[in-house]
Amino acid sequence: MTSCAFMPPAHPFDDDKLKEECGVYGVLGPKDAANFVALGLHALQHRGQEAGGIVSHDPKQGFNSVRRFGYVRDNFTRASLMETLPGPVAIGHVRYSTAGKKGAAIRDVQPFFGEFSLGGAAIAHNGNITNALELRHDLIERGSIFQSGSDTECIIHLMAKSMAKTIPDRMEDALRRVEGAFSIVAMTRTKLIGVRDPLGVRPLVLGEIGAGEGWALSSETCGLDIIGAKFVREIEPGEMVVISDEGVESRRPFRPRSPKFCIFEHVYFSRPDSILGGRSVYETRRQIGVELAREVPVEADIVCPVPDSGTPAAIGFAHESGIPYGMGIIRNQYMGRTFIEPTEQIRNMGVRLKLNVNRTLIEGKRVVLVDDSVVRGTTSRKIKEMILDAGAKEVHFRIASPPTAWPCFYGVDTPERSKLLAATMNEEEMRTFLGVDSLKFVSLDGLYRAVGEAARNAANPQYCDACFSGEYPVAPSDMIARGFQLKAAE
Amino acid sequence: MTSCAFMPPAHPFDDDKLKEECGVYGVLGPKDAANFVALGLHALQHRGQEAGGIVSHDPKQGFNSVRRFGYVRDNFTRASLMETLPGPVAIGHVRYSTAGKKGAAIRDVQPFFGEFSLGGAAIAHNGNITNALELRHDLIERGSIFQSGSDTECIIHLMAKSMAKTIPDRMEDALRRVEGAFSIVAMTRTKLIGVRDPLGVRPLVLGEIGAGEGWALSSETCGLDIIGAKFVREIEPGEMVVISDEGVESRRPFRPRSPKFCIFEHVYFSRPDSILGGRSVYETRRQIGVELAREVPVEADIVCPVPDSGTPAAIGFAHESGIPYGMGIIRNQYMGRTFIEPTEQIRNMGVRLKLNVNRTLIEGKRVVLVDDSVVRGTTSRKIKEMILDAGAKEVHFRIASPPTAWPCFYGVDTPERSKLLAATMNEEEMRTFLGVDSLKFVSLDGLYRAVGEAARNAANPQYCDACFSGEYPVAPSDMIARGFQLKAAE
Amino acid sequence: MTSCAFMPPAHPFDDDKLKEECGVYGVLGPKDAANFVALGLHALQHRGQEAGGIVSHDPKQGFNSVRRFGYVRDNFTRASLMETLPGPVAIGHVRYSTAGKKGAAIRDVQPFFGEFSLGGAAIAHNGNITNALELRHDLIERGSIFQSGSDTECIIHLMAKSMAKTIPDRMEDALRRVEGAFSIVAMTRTKLIGVRDPLGVRPLVLGEIGAGEGWALSSETCGLDIIGAKFVREIEPGEMVVISDEGVESRRPFRPRSPKFCIFEHVYFSRPDSILGGRSVYETRRQIGVELAREVPVEADIVCPVPDSGTPAAIGFAHESGIPYGMGIIRNQYMGRTFIEPTEQIRNMGVRLKLNVNRTLIEGKRVVLVDDSVVRGTTSRKIKEMILDAGAKEVHFRIASPPTAWPCFYGVDTPERSKLLAATMNEEEMRTFLGVDSLKFVSLDGLYRAVGEAARNAANPQYCDACFSGEYPVAPSDMIARGFQLKAAE
Amino acid sequence: MTSCAFMPPAHPFDDDKLKEECGVYGVLGPKDAANFVALGLHALQHRGQEAGGIVSHDPKQGFNSVRRFGYVRDNFTRASLMETLPGPVAIGHVRYSTAGKKGAAIRDVQPFFGEFSLGGAAIAHNGNITNALELRHDLIERGSIFQSGSDTECIIHLMAKSMAKTIPDRMEDALRRVEGAFSIVAMTRTKLIGVRDPLGVRPLVLGEIGAGEGWALSSETCGLDIIGAKFVREIEPGEMVVISDEGVESRRPFRPRSPKFCIFEHVYFSRPDSILGGRSVYETRRQIGVELAREVPVEADIVCPVPDSGTPAAIGFAHESGIPYGMGIIRNQYMGRTFIEPTEQIRNMGVRLKLNVNRTLIEGKRVVLVDDSVVRGTTSRKIKEMILDAGAKEVHFRIASPPTAWPCFYGVDTPERSKLLAATMNEEEMRTFLGVDSLKFVSLDGLYRAVGEAARNAANPQYCDACFSGEYPVAPSDMIARGFQLKAAE
Repeated sequence: MTSCAFMPPAHPFDDDKLKEECGVYGVLGPKDAANFVALGLHALQHRGQEAGGIVSHDPKQGFNSVRRFGYVRDNFTRASLMETLPGPVAIGHVRYSTAGKKGAAIRDVQPFFGEFSLGGAAIAHNGNITNALELRHDLIERGSIFQSGSDTECIIHLMAKSMAKTIPDRMEDALRRVEGAFSIVAMTRTKLIGVRDPLGVRPLVLGEIGAGEGWALSSETCGLDIIGAKFVREIEPGEMVVISDEGVESRRPFRPRSPKFCIFEHVYFSRPDSILGGRSVYETRRQIGVELAREVPVEADIVCPVPDSGTPAAIGFAHESGIPYGMGIIRNQYMGRTFIEPTEQIRNMGVRLKLNVNRTLIEGKRVVLVDDSVVRGTTSRKIKEMILDAGAKEVHFRIASPPTAWPCFYGVDTPERSKLLAATMNEEEMRTFLGVDSLKFVSLDGLYRAVGEAARNAANPQYCDACFSGEYPVAPSDMIARGFQLKAAE
Repeated sequence: MTSCAFMPPAHPFDDDKLKEECGVYGVLGPKDAANFVALGLHALQHRGQEAGGIVSHDPKQGFNSVRRFGYVRDNFTRASLMETLPGPVAIGHVRYSTAGKKGAAIRDVQPFFGEFSLGGAAIAHNGNITNALELRHDLIERGSIFQSGSDTECIIHLMAKSMAKTIPDRMEDALRRVEGAFSIVAMTRTKLIGVRDPLGVRPLVLGEIGAGEGWALSSETCGLDIIGAKFVREIEPGEMVVISDEGVESRRPFRPRSPKFCIFEHVYFSRPDSILGGRSVYETRRQIGVELAREVPVEADIVCPVPDSGTPAAIGFAHESGIPYGMGIIRNQYMGRTFIEPTEQIRNMGVRLKLNVNRTLIEGKRVVLVDDSVVRGTTSRKIKEMILDAGAKEVHFRIASPPTAWPCFYGVDTPERSKLLAATMNEEEMRTFLGVDSLKFVSLDGLYRAVGEAARNAANPQYCDACFSGEYPVAPSDMIARGFQLKAAE
Repeated sequence: MTSCAFMPPAHPFDDDKLKEECGVYGVLGPKDAANFVALGLHALQHRGQEAGGIVSHDPKQGFNSVRRFGYVRDNFTRASLMETLPGPVAIGHVRYSTAGKKGAAIRDVQPFFGEFSLGGAAIAHNGNITNALELRHDLIERGSIFQSGSDTECIIHLMAKSMAKTIPDRMEDALRRVEGAFSIVAMTRTKLIGVRDPLGVRPLVLGEIGAGEGWALSSETCGLDIIGAKFVREIEPGEMVVISDEGVESRRPFRPRSPKFCIFEHVYFSRPDSILGGRSVYETRRQIGVELAREVPVEADIVCPVPDSGTPAAIGFAHESGIPYGMGIIRNQYMGRTFIEPTEQIRNMGVRLKLNVNRTLIEGKRVVLVDDSVVRGTTSRKIKEMILDAGAKEVHFRIASPPTAWPCFYGVDTPERSKLLAATMNEEEMRTFLGVDSLKFVSLDGLYRAVGEAARNAANPQYCDACFSGEYPVAPSDMIARGFQLKAAE
Repeated sequence: MTSCAFMPPAHPFDDDKLKEECGVYGVLGPKDAANFVALGLHALQHRGQEAGGIVSHDPKQGFNSVRRFGYVRDNFTRASLMETLPGPVAIGHVRYSTAGKKGAAIRDVQPFFGEFSLGGAAIAHNGNITNALELRHDLIERGSIFQSGSDTECIIHLMAKSMAKTIPDRMEDALRRVEGAFSIVAMTRTKLIGVRDPLGVRPLVLGEIGAGEGWALSSETCGLDIIGAKFVREIEPGEMVVISDEGVESRRPFRPRSPKFCIFEHVYFSRPDSILGGRSVYETRRQIGVELAREVPVEADIVCPVPDSGTPAAIGFAHESGIPYGMGIIRNQYMGRTFIEPTEQIRNMGVRLKLNVNRTLIEGKRVVLVDDSVVRGTTSRKIKEMILDAGAKEVHFRIASPPTAWPCFYGVDTPERSKLLAATMNEEEMRTFLGVDSLKFVSLDGLYRAVGEAARNAANPQYCDACFSGEYPVAPSDMIARGFQLKAAE
């Protein structure tokens, strides 16, 4: 989830601007469910690195919760901590966030918990509620007291106010009032619940532990692999599954819509060893490289990935073009992802701290650099300088996604539109800005081909590709209320 | 405040049994109000040592909050922390509590904050709501989500649900539904609010900072002295004051009742340098010692206080009796008050760690020991043994309060009735249990004389003396619902 | 011990100015000796509040050490920590210190440990080595590497360089080269060692645990009382005791000298429940008050102690004079001792935070204030103002020691001479400076009478009273080398 | 450095078994030298991840030191910390270590510091002193007191005991008594010193900051790149450089010997973007892959690296063999290196947590897995299982180094010989143990070819290859004294 970054700081103690992509996970069955959840979250750490939380329920000890800033491996490995989370049902959450008063924002770390008259429930959310501002105002008007700045908290309050007789029913009630993107993992004392919004923007998969010994819900299949769970199927867009000792019940609480899975999950967010929509993420990315080599070829001596996200596409590009593949840029393993660093200044520092050039390989060569995307362009400029300093004769950028020209409002931290390079420059202007010999992006159609479509269906795209196209499948109401300009109808 | 210790653990993450006496403080006027609040809370630390919190509001930076376990002096002295609490209005709270998962209970540390449709408000509470269980059930039924196990949180939710148009009006609405004892300090963006329940069980005083430069509300006058504020008056039972830049507005939201100020504040809770009801606490305690010397005199060689709470009465007893005064028991300054230690075992250890005998002074003497009260009696036994081991010829206990035979439900941590020594033994049985040569308590009438009355008005006592008399001025509804037996009508 | 505050910062990483009075403790016998040491150090906490350490030895686990900033009760109570210090022999140390980079100075926290060719030894030191600078220079010249800025470390290096065949013999070797004041508790794998310098400036007592089950060494007898150990005797000036399973061996390594026990231990340092030289500290202080009432009487309405150190003398003064005793000043229990606060500014703040006046008792009265000593005079001025503000008619200071006019170089933190009020003013000037109606000190002879002498032996004082007289029983060599001016011979 | 893991725990408070490869760094010139050192250490983090330290010297503030457990990026980024390390000369150290009482072992974190009569010096060491046990015993006998369990501390004590007149001269004195492998960076108030042992086992390079504005010493060239320093040259085996404002003085304190640079630095330790002996590490590793493809080819469908250390060799193998290259194993970026995990159990867990298979790529394929080395073999078995579970038809291991059959005593953490797979099994036994279709290692000659030699000089190898050959260029005296069996002469 992302909280409403465009809202006035929702809670007076919270000056965090919450903008994140998240990972969610849940397990029902094994008596130490939280241990499985911790491993699952570790596998999903790439989806959110700032904080993580786990809630579990044990018939004797009731609900327990641990929420912490930092990595899963640091917060949830110690035996003593795991003892605090007993019981056969547990859910967890990892999240991105940006700088700010960390101490003040632990209240924003999920899962959230609510005690209702019919028992407690915990909820973990990946996505973003686009009418959260409106919902929050309405709820406060009706006497709800918010504890966090998170949009997810709206769901808890809507459930508290529902008159329905079971928690899954209350969740249905609540989610029918919610607009936007959400993949949710929730739990009651005895049930594990998974939901995807009608468009299915964010991923969520179901796994089986052992031979029916338990069930797992995970943002990605790599979260099943780590615990040795068997991949069963994806939760479908608009589906709610209610899992208990008696098995998996499937519900359809929403009016059916044409699905719009986030295509950027294929491009960057998901782990290369995950399977999305039946397709290997690694293979898709490799195939984007193949498309690039076909669409925008170039004569060169070596193909180098911008590590690590450009690697599969670079392998594909090298293979298709016949140009040798090499590691021209070496990543310092002791850094995080550039994506999460908040300020322009640190972002610049980050590149210097994070990447080094493999001079011997580059010197005197015509170099193709393959990257997954260009957002602000600042990193790309630094890399280009590094490559030229090392004595490259030519530098050609090949980007494994179309130009990123529009912000995402469905659970991704993107800069405001004016800071997106592709929102203000055309391809040639970008090339000049970056100072490279050539700069080419894969086409939208090429990207659709790589994910297995013949081409993009212009009238009704098969995926959410709003970040490239500006065509938002759900109107971002709160943002529009705050002045965001949609793309003019053409 | 005390949360409802008799409730089922209200919040599933909270296994704290909250039982405390508290201190509240608020300041409006000086631009660094929170600094004044920190000093005030430091002066009130004897009213609650486990945790403390401060909320402030600044026109630019909005509401800020810091809540911590530990002493005020450790949490609120560092410049960096004070920078986080800017602005000209601030309130604070210190509280007792008992053992348990401390990490889980920071949510129970006050002040509490609520964001309403008409702006935010923070509240700090000293006392106990006797119908909190009933209120909480009703509020949850109506969709409120509780974050703590504290009874005080009911007030916030009642305010959130009120339809009144201002925060003071909402607070009136809320408090009219509340039963029990409360002295409250609250704040909005521009106002400082003080309230005492109609019986005025807990203290609350108003002070003036400089010549009209600001106002302070404090549980006791010692909280005004520390910041050099001038004592103006007590907030009256049943009064609400709403303080703003325009001055102090007085309201009377409740039906008038005959006041019942807690007589134990005179006996033990308040600091000896405070003024309660126009009377010096030190002088009252000294006078109880005089009454004791008159009511239950004894031939002896030396009068020793049980430090530190028995000291003023011992001085009074020595003066009235003509027996020399001496420090027969020396307190280790590096401990806290026995009162806060939760388990029997640590209580026993505590005495050994905390007190030592001044052997030379005691040896061969007939010793009068003056203490403020006897609760379980375990400490008194240890002290007696220590005195006899040091070679005293005789040991005579003189207690500066009547036998404590009933629990308090108005904001004081007392053991359940069966653990109160005086609930199960008469005076002679207690003397035998303690193993002393004599044991005598001041009479209820003697205590009333020491606080300036001619005697106790048996039909309608001038104070709340339920812990001695079992006559509860407010029916403890939640407790009765859970099986507590009131004193049989005689 | 105090490290050589007048030395160039001995170790480059250490900018601490170490100036402290310390407490030392040791136990041999019980299988959990460190638990006893922790309790003993807690009882000695008044001798040093900044840091504490314990070393223990267990036949299987060898030597273990824990050294921490903060109170004993906070650092050594948790079971887990005590598990780290197993074994039947242990020593400990508490120390004062002043502000500075605390992180850097853990190296200065005792006990110190050295691994010698004949086994390991740990040492804890109360006092100050007056030729430490010279010793350190010599040792460094000979290849020793110092780890701390502490004078005590010299002893360890002298022992390492000794050719003697046992650790006690090496300690004798080392201490014969050392000048100054020292009470030392040390340990080897199987032995507990206690030493006092030939003058016996600092205290050290021997206790027996159970019926020969173990032995304890403690700076004061209050450290024996807390663990229920029986006081056996004082270690004598110039004596070394070597305690093992076979009992207590007494040695006399030094040339005999006339003892000079620190008279200020009676005045202020020791706890009132300790016994020094066979005399109750409380009783001595009470007797100083009696001497004051005889030497410098005054007509007044009430006698008030400056709490807590002035209390016994005030009781004595009141008793002797017949003027009623009362608590005119109330101390906030949640502060430490004024003595340890480093800067003038915080010292001033300290008074305001720490003491409040009991207005009702003082108003319209002629007040005698009894304090133990006057050092800089700043606190006394604040107290006087507080008393006058409360409406006292007259203020008379009576000081339970002679004017403090000279710094101590034997293990006490004193300001440099120019900052001592009595070094630059006579009594009338001090009275004017303090702004009181009268200011009188007990005479040196009066003080000697209170400790049981007929009078001070002017030619050869029975105690070290250098802080009052300027007559230093051991020449402070390092200080003289750095320009300190001894009192001119008269 | 590694401390003497085979010694009895040298210091009684230290139960760490220190076994590590380290990184060293130093800067002279820029006024904030420590900032440069922190960046340099960050680039060298792969050489030691458990702890790091920096010492700096400033003319006004003297020597300062910060030593911490954890990553450089966490300990040395905050401005406040950097303020504690001012001045134009600084050195630093990162180190590996194993489990144990971390709190107790901060004393083992380098740089070490010693205050000598002619001023202070700090020292950071990469390597291992093979006669440390003997030196330590001798030094203790002569009165030295050791503070750590580290072999490096011997050097400091030898320097303290030297009679030479300058610190560089004392270091020469000390190092002439030392046997083993060492690359040292040291500093005095005004000088930066670099030394390599006569064999030059560990790397050390010199860089220039700006145009003569300063100098840097670094274990690897990647440490120069990160700060933009120009690579000048390697410090030569047996050379000492003394760098001051006046430039770089070169000394030759040792008898010349035939160099034996650690060949495993090429295989695994160094970063692929570093230059060792004029050769790109990446290129050498790629070339080992080429040699492997020539020496032990195999028919297969895909070549996959074991990430990340097998990647360059896999690229070389794929290129030479013409078999497509792909990422069959995906590494979780949020783990460290397998190499550092101490227990068998965690090692097994580590693989599961750390690596996942890219099923789609592997299924039905004949897979070549390229890894840098096999130590215990446990990880390799897990990987093989993972690959077979994913449906691979065949699994062929190709190892980019010869069988590791002997422990290293020159600064590398290796298991004892009996735990090295290749010490107890021949190639076919290993293949069976791992359960793979084929297992082949590059030959020693092949490895020598990859580093640019025609072949290994059997009589006098050009590198230290003891871990493969059992031919130790420096006799490991301490180890032999403790029973280690050298390879029988053939």
